[in-house]
Amino acid sequence: MLKPHKLSNDNFLSCLDISADEVHHILEVAKNFKNEDLELKLKNKVLGLIFDKSSTRTRVSFQVAMSRLGGTTIDLNPNTSQIGRGEAIKDTARVLSRYCDVIAIRTFKHSDLEEYAKWSTKPIINALTDFEHPCQALADFLTIKEEYFDFENVVLTFVGDGNNVANSLILCGALLGVEVRIACPKGYEPDSLVINQAREIYKNKNLLKISNDPFSAVSGANVLYTDVWSSMGEEKQKEEKDKDFNGFSIDENLLSKAEKDAIILHCLPAYRGKEITEKVMESKNSRIFNQAENRMHAQQALLACLLA
Amino acid sequence: MLKPHKLSNDNFLSCLDISADEVHHILEVAKNFKNEDLELKLKNKVLGLIFDKSSTRTRVSFQVAMSRLGGTTIDLNPNTSQIGRGEAIKDTARVLSRYCDVIAIRTFKHSDLEEYAKWSTKPIINALTDFEHPCQALADFLTIKEEYFDFENVVLTFVGDGNNVANSLILCGALLGVEVRIACPKGYEPDSLVINQAREIYKNKNLLKISNDPFSAVSGANVLYTDVWSSMGEEKQKEEKDKDFNGFSIDENLLSKAEKDAIILHCLPAYRGKEITEKVMESKNSRIFNQAENRMHAQQALLACLLA
Amino acid sequence: MLKPHKLSNDNFLSCLDISADEVHHILEVAKNFKNEDLELKLKNKVLGLIFDKSSTRTRVSFQVAMSRLGGTTIDLNPNTSQIGRGEAIKDTARVLSRYCDVIAIRTFKHSDLEEYAKWSTKPIINALTDFEHPCQALADFLTIKEEYFDFENVVLTFVGDGNNVANSLILCGALLGVEVRIACPKGYEPDSLVINQAREIYKNKNLLKISNDPFSAVSGANVLYTDVWSSMGEEKQKEEKDKDFNGFSIDENLLSKAEKDAIILHCLPAYRGKEITEKVMESKNSRIFNQAENRMHAQQALLACLLA
Repeated sequence: MLKPHKLSNDNFLSCLDISADEVHHILEVAKNFKNEDLELKLKNKVLGLIFDKSSTRTRVSFQVAMSRLGGTTIDLNPNTSQIGRGEAIKDTARVLSRYCDVIAIRTFKHSDLEEYAKWSTKPIINALTDFEHPCQALADFLTIKEEYFDFENVVLTFVGDGNNVANSLILCGALLGVEVRIACPKGYEPDSLVINQAREIYKNKNLLKISNDPFSAVSGANVLYTDVWSSMGEEKQKEEKDKDFNGFSIDENLLSKAEKDAIILHCLPAYRGKEITEKVMESKNSRIFNQAENRMHAQQALLACLLA
Repeated sequence: MLKPHKLSNDNFLSCLDISADEVHHILEVAKNFKNEDLELKLKNKVLGLIFDKSSTRTRVSFQVAMSRLGGTTIDLNPNTSQIGRGEAIKDTARVLSRYCDVIAIRTFKHSDLEEYAKWSTKPIINALTDFEHPCQALADFLTIKEEYFDFENVVLTFVGDGNNVANSLILCGALLGVEVRIACPKGYEPDSLVINQAREIYKNKNLLKISNDPFSAVSGANVLYTDVWSSMGEEKQKEEKDKDFNGFSIDENLLSKAEKDAIILHCLPAYRGKEITEKVMESKNSRIFNQAENRMHAQQALLACLLA
Repeated sequence: MLKPHKLSNDNFLSCLDISADEVHHILEVAKNFKNEDLELKLKNKVLGLIFDKSSTRTRVSFQVAMSRLGGTTIDLNPNTSQIGRGEAIKDTARVLSRYCDVIAIRTFKHSDLEEYAKWSTKPIINALTDFEHPCQALADFLTIKEEYFDFENVVLTFVGDGNNVANSLILCGALLGVEVRIACPKGYEPDSLVINQAREIYKNKNLLKISNDPFSAVSGANVLYTDVWSSMGEEKQKEEKDKDFNGFSIDENLLSKAEKDAIILHCLPAYRGKEITEKVMESKNSRIFNQAENRMHAQQALLACLLA
């Protein structure tokens, strides 16, 4: 029976915190959990969730994953805790790591997450920051692995904003040697630091392509991925972004330019008629709900490794 | 030992989703759970709660029921989840049914509940809509059964608004062959669809009586039931409803017209001096807190059957 | 193996609800839980949390404590429950004690807590009122016991507002025979009822000293304790209190007047530059985070005794 092993890094703040081998290991453990080939009961383990932004999938999938590991989840909603009352992160982190065995945090500033990690004596998991969404990337590549068995000939095109989701896809894709293409409007390119980090990992292979033309970007792709145009906290820019992203919808026309049987991913929630059409969303190409389910399996594997 | 068996219907949206036999079975299982004659530990089961309105009894009783079954409850508060952000119900339902084994929903529109049920691949439970409150009815009839052993000579009079609680009492009462009388001010009669459905179940027996006179309605009754005049979301109509419901309080005078030793039920919260007086509330006739406790046992039985 | 035994009182509303022997017993059980010399799994026990004020440490430490006892915690947030809708405490208490095995309540008025206890059929725990914070005191004296083994020569000086935290320190200190000194600005003295109760317990020993001079109060002290100047709900008085408490900060200068190696306690959250300085907070004298951890162990012991 496969045994989840400890990761080289205590925390999972970024896809760069784990090695390519570790990504493969986490995905393998996740697959085993999903197929019920692996059952692991940890004793008295507690996951703390600090969510400064709302969440359905991440919160629920973490709770179910923890419950399957025999553990308990504690929801540290800033509305009902002192966390929102201006306590220093270094105090909150030190206190909570006395109670919890692992803490998953959704917050705005990535530097706040790093501050938590600096002071916590227990593993910190990035459950979404403005900069990265690495748990999502694990679920995404698990979904791709289920479809294509390995990552050899995968061409993944992300159509949309070069945001946190795109950043994590790029970094995790680089670790796995997957060709990643980002098609975004001018001005919405992924962070240049992320691009440089990924290119360093890819070495001499030119597998990361940033473009402003969705049609050329999806040509030959067997995975099409999109995300909402306006994330949480961007409600004010919504109208402007809707205009800027005109032409960047995954619709039947764009889908027809991809490889036959290309699969569609979306990290949800989806806004039909914006970044994706109803028809594509509900097409046989969609793996969107399987991808959502995989959040749970991937995170169960991640927790198992961090707590190993 | 009694074994909870699977219901004919996947969901429990309405009392009409179950047969008379199934009501009897659920009440029997509930009684066994309450008497600790039955213990059932399900493995790794997860109940999701989506509550668009606030709740004490329903939420807590579901959580304790699930915990007694060895399972976990996840609270999907729309304030802290994406559910409130305008995600399509069909997406939320499909995602959550990947994580949860059963989902209980409290919402306003009954059609929203039906939309959840249409798309969810796991059982959906009605934890209160504007139209029905079937889990409450199960607890109510469990309480009546504890008092009178069977439903043979039970005459149940509901004094108040012909609302969701009344609707479920009528439908469940019809299934059990109980005489149900509704005494409400003019204009507050139960839904005519419900009345027709119940009369169809009662067949040629004239056991459903709708009246605007509480005194004649309680004469001969051995169960008196009331509910708040203004439900959640009706704060604006409060003053008007208080006027309209004048004379529809269960007070000592009205109680004296019922059968000797008639029991008093109320689904709580209670507003003393409105729909019920302090004296009646605290009288020896009251089974109100036992009824509240029975929410837990009835729902544990329901969950056991839905997950069987 | 040490066995937690039932307390003489059903509830824990005040430090005065337990005897000196019972404090010693709870601290001993807590120490055993902390050292993993004791493991106790209760069957299907449910802790209800009613928190009218926000909380991090108390809520999380109770949840983890309950989870270590094999039990479940249910969060009864007034925002998402009917509790805030004006239901009578006597009804809420009677209903919840049908579902829960023990209930911890954080509320403003101590008399509300007493009303809950009057009507609940299950133990009620004070998780903070305007008058007392007895669970905090248990954790505080556990931390002191870890440092000094017994309470023989302990001199505890609390510098700050004579509030709920001070009240519980005084009462628990009196039970344990510890010398307790309160240094507060004029007008911020602890409640005179508490002072009288403590003096009665201390009998002819003059071990409770109330002063307005922090320097004389810390002289000879081996435990220095402080708390925020403005508690939750006192946001309006903040500016005035900041002025009144000028000179009542625990800084290096004040610390230097205490015994060498005196330890620093703070019930958190801390506001650096107000009641405590960064340097003292982060000094080797601080036991603040250990004290925070001890909330969990002390409450696990309390729960074990109340449910024994």
